[in-house]
Amino acid sequence: MAIDRRGETGLMPGWETFMQESQPGAVEGLQELIRIPSISALPEHSGDVTKAAECVADRLRAVGIEDVSIMPTGGHPVVYGQWLRAAGKPTILLYGHFDVQPVDPIELWDAGPFSAEIRDDRIYGRGASDMKGSLAALILAVEALLKGEGALPVNVKFILEGQEEIGSPQLPDFVVARRDLLSCDLVISADGQQYAVDQPSIEMGLRGLCAVEIDVRGPSRDLHSGSYGGAVQNPIHALVRLLDSMRGEQGDILVEGFYDDVVPLSNEDRRLMAKVPFDEEAYKRELGVKDLFGEAGYSPVERKWARPTLEINGIFGGFQGEGTKTVLPSEAHAKITCRLVPNQEPDQVIAAIQHHVDRNQQPGVEITSTPEGSGARPYLIPPDQWGNRAAREVLAELYGKAPVYTRTGGSVPVCAIFLSELGSYTVLFGFGAPDEPVHAPNEFWRLSSFDRARRAYSLLLHRLAA
Amino acid sequence: MAIDRRGETGLMPGWETFMQESQPGAVEGLQELIRIPSISALPEHSGDVTKAAECVADRLRAVGIEDVSIMPTGGHPVVYGQWLRAAGKPTILLYGHFDVQPVDPIELWDAGPFSAEIRDDRIYGRGASDMKGSLAALILAVEALLKGEGALPVNVKFILEGQEEIGSPQLPDFVVARRDLLSCDLVISADGQQYAVDQPSIEMGLRGLCAVEIDVRGPSRDLHSGSYGGAVQNPIHALVRLLDSMRGEQGDILVEGFYDDVVPLSNEDRRLMAKVPFDEEAYKRELGVKDLFGEAGYSPVERKWARPTLEINGIFGGFQGEGTKTVLPSEAHAKITCRLVPNQEPDQVIAAIQHHVDRNQQPGVEITSTPEGSGARPYLIPPDQWGNRAAREVLAELYGKAPVYTRTGGSVPVCAIFLSELGSYTVLFGFGAPDEPVHAPNEFWRLSSFDRARRAYSLLLHRLAA
Repeated sequence: MAIDRRGETGLMPGWETFMQESQPGAVEGLQELIRIPSISALPEHSGDVTKAAECVADRLRAVGIEDVSIMPTGGHPVVYGQWLRAAGKPTILLYGHFDVQPVDPIELWDAGPFSAEIRDDRIYGRGASDMKGSLAALILAVEALLKGEGALPVNVKFILEGQEEIGSPQLPDFVVARRDLLSCDLVISADGQQYAVDQPSIEMGLRGLCAVEIDVRGPSRDLHSGSYGGAVQNPIHALVRLLDSMRGEQGDILVEGFYDDVVPLSNEDRRLMAKVPFDEEAYKRELGVKDLFGEAGYSPVERKWARPTLEINGIFGGFQGEGTKTVLPSEAHAKITCRLVPNQEPDQVIAAIQHHVDRNQQPGVEITSTPEGSGARPYLIPPDQWGNRAAREVLAELYGKAPVYTRTGGSVPVCAIFLSELGSYTVLFGFGAPDEPVHAPNEFWRLSSFDRARRAYSLLLHRLAA
Repeated sequence: MAIDRRGETGLMPGWETFMQESQPGAVEGLQELIRIPSISALPEHSGDVTKAAECVADRLRAVGIEDVSIMPTGGHPVVYGQWLRAAGKPTILLYGHFDVQPVDPIELWDAGPFSAEIRDDRIYGRGASDMKGSLAALILAVEALLKGEGALPVNVKFILEGQEEIGSPQLPDFVVARRDLLSCDLVISADGQQYAVDQPSIEMGLRGLCAVEIDVRGPSRDLHSGSYGGAVQNPIHALVRLLDSMRGEQGDILVEGFYDDVVPLSNEDRRLMAKVPFDEEAYKRELGVKDLFGEAGYSPVERKWARPTLEINGIFGGFQGEGTKTVLPSEAHAKITCRLVPNQEPDQVIAAIQHHVDRNQQPGVEITSTPEGSGARPYLIPPDQWGNRAAREVLAELYGKAPVYTRTGGSVPVCAIFLSELGSYTVLFGFGAPDEPVHAPNEFWRLSSFDRARRAYSLLLHRLAA
């Protein structure tokens, strides 16, 4: 609910007039971006990730951003651009990503995941909510400011990446190598969500991430379970035994050393989290579960925002078809990721898991563990940091109510990297909503959020100039 | 090594003379049968299964078997035929199958899997060892007896099926419906192997089989492991917890009631199994494992032949691709089969597993168990059963050494069905060898086994008349 600024000045600000009059094709532009299947996890789509980079770079150039270039990282590229003509004003690094998650299980999508179909107020497609929608809105807001007002209120640098959904493996080195180019006073990340469609929020923290694959190898070939069963170990049984040894009855993690560096929640942390509206019954209904589950002594909100986890993301081995096949398989595999909280370090958690695997070797099979990716440190920003204060004012104006202070269970590795390498906090300022199934079939974004996001970025850049 | 019977009587028996003088095309006849790609598992080959049935039926008619017919089962057909003119002599039901396993991976075959190529002493092709070779030998032996001696020493009925390699789904009902037609004093199965090319064996038992699928359902959709991890149960964790609760540290099965009906091994059972040549180091080398694994207190041979198992044949859930996907999946699944020993009943073991699943439900997910197929009872035949005594004498004569008493870890459902429905034991009397890669690329059979098998069936039918 925007305040009608015409009531104050008798005139709409220039950016707003431009938005209304000169951006009628905004939705079509977003559809075009969503239709590029820029799945960073799948090698066969790497050309599409590059295509999305080119599309985004073209748009930055078209809106008036200078020195736009597609920069190599060793993996998927980064799009950089800048506008540094606001002398004496802060420099804001604007962060986003143009890659998306894979689409499987594809059969659960009602329409093609890259069809960008519009139904009611919603635009459907992989990446619509996470985060091509907010990314398009950010670029359109900058265009409206530049073309509607002739200048930006602050200096900006864009860093848009194509590997966020695979954990940004090359981005840390890129940031280190381009530290001077990227130097700034504050980072605004357009990647993220508000607490609800009608409830704005200020993000105070993100969990970190680390990943490891477990591989169990038994006999050198698949065996007939009748001829050999009983004489040799079955790799699947060895795997389930190992995996079950990692978590206790209530989801508490039994890997030795896992919790060593976890900073206990303060009373203030718990007070802010308790103020966040959370309807447990509605949450269970929405997820289709009878009971929530997790560590004793913590609320569900505390558990998903501020406690570490160890989750098996995938498991596979042996026969998966219809009916039966009496095979004693040669191999079995599991993929694990952990969410981390301050002050856990990804490398140390991986080391603890690998130590656990080594100590739980089993006769008749060989179990190995392999770290995947470089992980992400957890991230925290003070609630009253100056960027957060500006964000709070904009959100209060747009939503007509004060934001709540939240954390996010997910990970945005770059926040911790920007803090350690550039010395700048990242304000998380994205406009997804939690009921939009990101990373899942039928992902969508609301067109009303598209409108709100464009206004929000314009307002925020003005506030940050003050 | 056949005893030269001419030394005793001055004359070859009639069947042997006929074999030598009138069956010079025996190998070509076997090649013709192998060239029919009668793969019962593949719908596109069902015409070939019928063609193999017709080929076998024609041969039975040609050798003098009466009332030969191809009988419908609802699936692949059965070939039936009889010769019942040996008044006062026992009636022997002769069992075999003319279907074969699929041939994949086809690229590992040195020659076409249905080329029936002969190299050295070997005939190569899918089904050569399992079991078109022994089947052809059986029919030729009956021909030699009928044409060389004018009559068979016993009454015989043939039941040759076309669906053994897919678990004989319609055969139990067929046997029940044709109980009178199939009534007999003993069954001889030509399906099976001797312990080694130079070591004959008497099969005393087969393990039974039952199958169940476990399905775990959690949240109604795949969730982002960052946003939701910690708040809800992960179906894969629930699955590994359940599965691990089913087996103990050494592979002992912890499902309540699982062992209730297991008849302990007798001293005589263990003595016979200990006499079977078994080189543990060679076995480990062949399987590529450092250690064998299984229930304490039993030898590897006892464990794979005479102890029940619970094996996870397949497990799957969540992400299986390259790299990471931070998903908390909606579902996870496992496929289990158990090998059973006397007196376990498939239905009761399934019920015990289902009870275990029900008692190990976990908060936040729903776990269901679904039996698959109708299972197979375990089968045992006393070592000194009259059919086994006759088999032992024939084998000792042909190999020049006494057979060892073995069991098979796998399952041949018809043996238990013949016992319960016809009241007759099945003597397993086939001439495959364990180094002939059945169910795998480059399956072959030895032509020396072909010769030995023809003689063996002729001698056995004579012995059974006594």
